[in-house]
Amino acid sequence: MVQYQPADIDRAFVALADATRRDVLERLSTGSATISELAAPYGMSLTGMKKHIQVLEDASLITTEKVGRARLCHLVPYAFEGISVWLARLDRFAQVVERTKGTR
Amino acid sequence: MVQYQPADIDRAFVALADATRRDVLERLSTGSATISELAAPYGMSLTGMKKHIQVLEDASLITTEKVGRARLCHLVPYAFEGISVWLARLDRFAQVVERTKGTR
Repeated sequence: MVQYQPADIDRAFVALADATRRDVLERLSTGSATISELAAPYGMSLTGMKKHIQVLEDASLITTEKVGRARLCHLVPYAFEGISVWLARLDRFAQVVERTKGTR
Repeated sequence: MVQYQPADIDRAFVALADATRRDVLERLSTGSATISELAAPYGMSLTGMKKHIQVLEDASLITTEKVGRARLCHLVPYAFEGISVWLARLDRFAQVVERTKGTR
């Protein structure tokens, strides 16, 4: 598993704290897409979408590559493994704490 | 599973985008604690910790209750279930996309 620094995790969660960026990640989970393709469903300007893409790329959740005149975006495989494992672990602990409450 | 509105998910991710707040959640996953107990390891003022607690409570990740003169904080059971399932699903899709790349 990738080892994360706190600042990397901060960036990942900030990137996830926006419904449009979460939609983009869902779209990219079904296959790579250009910035124009990603912007189209929102009637969003290319400039607006580029800003979201930059935030996602800075958080290492996606990569982009220039293909001709377009920029193609890819979801990074396993990008969420570290944080989803961490969140699931917290949930498991919380459930144990909850269950043992009655027995004290 | 709890159904989340986009604004609720935004708040959860914003709350998670801070190393101190993630530490507090880890601490609370081992059992409930007062705000003073949570502030102590950081040499943080009560006022500073109260702000973090407020962000976590607004995001419905923790609950607090007044016990005598102290405020006791509890992790909400299953609070992360929705988002950890969503993140794990994205990862699974991304892995499938990655694997099928070579076969096209």
